[in-house]
Amino acid sequence: MRIARFSVDDEVKFGLVEGEGDQPESLEVAEIVGHPFGPVQVTQRRWPLSRVRLLAPVLPSKVIGIGRNYAEHAAELGNEAPGKTDPAVVFLKPSTSVIGPSDAIQYPLGVSFDVQHEAELAVVIGRMCRQVPVARVPDVVLGYTCGNDVTARDLQRAENQWGRAKGFDTFCPLGPWIETELDPGDLAITCTVDGELKQAGRTVQMTRPVADLVSYVSEAMTLLPGDVILTGTPAGVGPIVVGQQVSVGIEGIGNLTNRVVARD
Amino acid sequence: MRIARFSVDDEVKFGLVEGEGDQPESLEVAEIVGHPFGPVQVTQRRWPLSRVRLLAPVLPSKVIGIGRNYAEHAAELGNEAPGKTDPAVVFLKPSTSVIGPSDAIQYPLGVSFDVQHEAELAVVIGRMCRQVPVARVPDVVLGYTCGNDVTARDLQRAENQWGRAKGFDTFCPLGPWIETELDPGDLAITCTVDGELKQAGRTVQMTRPVADLVSYVSEAMTLLPGDVILTGTPAGVGPIVVGQQVSVGIEGIGNLTNRVVARD
Repeated sequence: MRIARFSVDDEVKFGLVEGEGDQPESLEVAEIVGHPFGPVQVTQRRWPLSRVRLLAPVLPSKVIGIGRNYAEHAAELGNEAPGKTDPAVVFLKPSTSVIGPSDAIQYPLGVSFDVQHEAELAVVIGRMCRQVPVARVPDVVLGYTCGNDVTARDLQRAENQWGRAKGFDTFCPLGPWIETELDPGDLAITCTVDGELKQAGRTVQMTRPVADLVSYVSEAMTLLPGDVILTGTPAGVGPIVVGQQVSVGIEGIGNLTNRVVARD
Repeated sequence: MRIARFSVDDEVKFGLVEGEGDQPESLEVAEIVGHPFGPVQVTQRRWPLSRVRLLAPVLPSKVIGIGRNYAEHAAELGNEAPGKTDPAVVFLKPSTSVIGPSDAIQYPLGVSFDVQHEAELAVVIGRMCRQVPVARVPDVVLGYTCGNDVTARDLQRAENQWGRAKGFDTFCPLGPWIETELDPGDLAITCTVDGELKQAGRTVQMTRPVADLVSYVSEAMTLLPGDVILTGTPAGVGPIVVGQQVSVGIEGIGNLTNRVVARD
């Protein structure tokens, strides 16, 4: 299933996206009853996807980021990548940083001079859980979406902790929808800027695969329905500037495209 | 005003704490209408404070922590303290780490072997805001409470980012209530473990005072009503172990006491 959150006629709803491919012209969205964290029941109300506004597919209580989970990306920034059994690099992004596919990334001009894209597979948690063994992770995952761990690289390099560099409003685009039937083990993940390919990796290159990450994070903190874990970015990160369009694509999910504007 | 959040007869309410001193025996709590983020109106319903269960005074959407904001504390951990105009050390604690005065800190035995207390003045935001100039900070602050930025020091030392070391469930005690009429400029702040004084500082020792911090953080991220900024800890941090009681005291607010138990 593809679960979307969307607004139409000034109301916010969850729905199932139906049809082939990922072009809005060929897709419809059918409203579901209530929220998607239980048995999903479709209503009779449906719209062409092009007629609704897609929102971030969830409003997470927390977004957990994982740093340096692709060795080649760690190396391109001059960092050593932690090994499979080393502590992972775990940070948080605030819920106020989350935007959807129809929103713009707001560039904090005058505060950062080097905002960069980071295409990532985003895991969406479906059930409240903690201390989840690796084998039980599939039970607590609702599905997967595309994420962009937008980062003010200059601030990140200058600051000991990344709360600010990765925490600006709009620095966590998520979408376009949650794909619930997907094996996250070996998916192509790309990032393009104005159509030019910048990042191209595969999730199989992760040092810690998805199930390990969910288990590892849940060892420390309770995960709630809708919480998101960003699983790290492959090599090829680089700057985005005002006026550009940045697009994260993940095989089996679709594309998350956001334009970059100067913040108000 | 002292604003508390409490449960009584299986209902959760906000109330005003009335009476002299800070001993529950001499205090009452009067229920207010709705939430405290607007004009506060007291109802006729009141209870002796000893008859209710105090909860964390807010449920923050995010808790922003500030590291190394007292030079003497930075030095005791072997770190250089950032200056007044250097970037601050900004990190986030998840909402799942928040507990109240009646709850226990759960020690993650087997994961960390060095959990420590950090007594801190906690700023509670009262209004949605961003990019707040220093002079306007009083308009967006609801009040102040005691916070304990509980930290797995061994994990913090071993890990590049502090998302895990400071993010365990129960690692953010807040309370006992929000004091809305308080000048945060020069307050005594202490931490005792089983009655023994461990930390004793004054908020005037902060490198960046409260108004600077709120302005600085809000430059990057929108703050929502109930969000909390922990303003850093004075010197004297040290271990807590299962069976102990740790108490944060702040002049003009009161005491936040939590016992330490092994986590389930």
